[in-house]
Amino acid sequence: MNGYVIAVDAMGGDNAPRAIIEGCRRAVRKFPDVSILLCGPKAMILPMLGQEERIEILEAPDVIGMHEHPMLAVRKKTESSLVKAMLAVREGRAGAVVSAGSTGAILAGGILRVGRIPGIERPALAPIIPGANKPFLLIDCGANVDCQAKYLLQFGLMGSVYMQSVMGVQVPQVGLCNIGTEAEKGDRLTKEAYGLFSEQKIFSFAGNAEVRDVPTGDFDVVVCDGFVGNVLLKTIEGTAKLMMGNLRTYVRSSLRTKIGALLLKPALYRLKADLDYKRHGGAPLLGVNGAVVKAHGSSDGEAIENAIRQARLMLEGRVVEKIREGLKEDEEHVL
Amino acid sequence: MNGYVIAVDAMGGDNAPRAIIEGCRRAVRKFPDVSILLCGPKAMILPMLGQEERIEILEAPDVIGMHEHPMLAVRKKTESSLVKAMLAVREGRAGAVVSAGSTGAILAGGILRVGRIPGIERPALAPIIPGANKPFLLIDCGANVDCQAKYLLQFGLMGSVYMQSVMGVQVPQVGLCNIGTEAEKGDRLTKEAYGLFSEQKIFSFAGNAEVRDVPTGDFDVVVCDGFVGNVLLKTIEGTAKLMMGNLRTYVRSSLRTKIGALLLKPALYRLKADLDYKRHGGAPLLGVNGAVVKAHGSSDGEAIENAIRQARLMLEGRVVEKIREGLKEDEEHVL
Repeated sequence: MNGYVIAVDAMGGDNAPRAIIEGCRRAVRKFPDVSILLCGPKAMILPMLGQEERIEILEAPDVIGMHEHPMLAVRKKTESSLVKAMLAVREGRAGAVVSAGSTGAILAGGILRVGRIPGIERPALAPIIPGANKPFLLIDCGANVDCQAKYLLQFGLMGSVYMQSVMGVQVPQVGLCNIGTEAEKGDRLTKEAYGLFSEQKIFSFAGNAEVRDVPTGDFDVVVCDGFVGNVLLKTIEGTAKLMMGNLRTYVRSSLRTKIGALLLKPALYRLKADLDYKRHGGAPLLGVNGAVVKAHGSSDGEAIENAIRQARLMLEGRVVEKIREGLKEDEEHVL
Repeated sequence: MNGYVIAVDAMGGDNAPRAIIEGCRRAVRKFPDVSILLCGPKAMILPMLGQEERIEILEAPDVIGMHEHPMLAVRKKTESSLVKAMLAVREGRAGAVVSAGSTGAILAGGILRVGRIPGIERPALAPIIPGANKPFLLIDCGANVDCQAKYLLQFGLMGSVYMQSVMGVQVPQVGLCNIGTEAEKGDRLTKEAYGLFSEQKIFSFAGNAEVRDVPTGDFDVVVCDGFVGNVLLKTIEGTAKLMMGNLRTYVRSSLRTKIGALLLKPALYRLKADLDYKRHGGAPLLGVNGAVVKAHGSSDGEAIENAIRQARLMLEGRVVEKIREGLKEDEEHVL
């Protein structure tokens, strides 16, 4: 196979395999330099796929379900579509993986089967979050709890490389998620991390990112422990849901407000879409030895196409190589 | 002085002393069983206050500014309105303190000058947060970082006592803020806390409160480390601000949406007010040897009246005594 070879997990996500196959078909038509290794049960996929140039099926009879124990499933189900896709990267048959499967299984598969970049302590999940002025990368958002300061430092490097190489931000501004702007603010972890961030020279540290200012701020990358990142992400989601729900209730309270809502529909629709971070593509798993993109579980064909585009950009932008180079640049240092 | 004696910091907050004086005046008129010890410079306050039954001025010539170092200021400025109010509680002249001063100074003053309840490791700041179905108490929201599991357990007790005694919830449901619902989820701290919470018998533990479900859930108390609580609180604030800002932009985009917004005004107004947790009274500082209420810095007379009402409810509900009793009940145990 030629060009950028992307292994796709045909069986991950709520709409698999139909939406996944549709997404692959759209992607190869749009990107002439992309070839796809579609991992799943051939007998099931082939009739739906038919003949398609630059899509090859890699037989994987087994499936990892959404509620299986991630580590156990990845270890045991060596013939699953997810594990086969991950192994294709390890064996050099593909450069990237796209999966809409369970977050836990993708993490476990990325770490155990693709493998870490040598020197990286903890791979991290890094969704793009919509902000008021521009989107930002939140790293880590749940893959790693009980982080050490050094992990956060590596998150800063990885996030910076991604925003530069994939999102085209020339000098990404990296903020350290904290409960105050001053250097001495925070808990043990953030105070220690602040020291490390200030010393290093491989990414642009823009200081503490106070949480209140994160959605409206100028940070391109926001670094935090995975527990904190998950709280941040889920609170955005929960608050947006609460507000839209309340608005719906208030609108129903009178004819006047009902008519108002009807007229305001385009604006309300945009508002709802705003905070739906799932629309901003999949979340890259950074720090593993290949471009791994976790698409949302409810992805349709378009979302899968977008995730493949994203994986392609990670390959084109040489994200893995640049993280490796970043680690080397800093050899004498703390990273 | 008779009834519930509440010491009020006349000089704390953006609108001091005028709004504070107005709030005190409103409170004594509304609550015949409340007497106020108004702490501040007599020469400044008396002309604005005039004669008012059940309000007595306690001379305090000094003021702690919003940007002073809290610990240092509380230690040094023994004649400040805040410290004088706190000392009035320590000396038994008042049962409660209300201040709209800086959070840091109120924390420091509460801990150093009012003093902790014997056995309580860390007093905690616990604002009431509006939810979809009912408000809940978030404890801690920033007073304590690097918490130990035992502190969280005490937060659970204190939060439960407050919701029962002040908010009238018969059996408050206490949730442990976490990144998943299962017992084995979370970081070291929450896993250990989960064990302690499950063992104790002095409050009703309702399991892990996954962040996504916190605003729409059925928890009366949500317990977390202060770093996490602060992230949660500020993310709600930041997200609400972002959404209202975006809506404003979208509304302006056409005549249709402008008219829609005009008709929808009552609903939008309610929406904006919804997530303004400052409207839900001040935040109690729980775990100190008196009823301390931190009113918002921008409080007007009505907000101060509400904070005084809240302090009165804490005295009437015997919050401090009940926390003490809770600790005793659990003597043989971990608390």
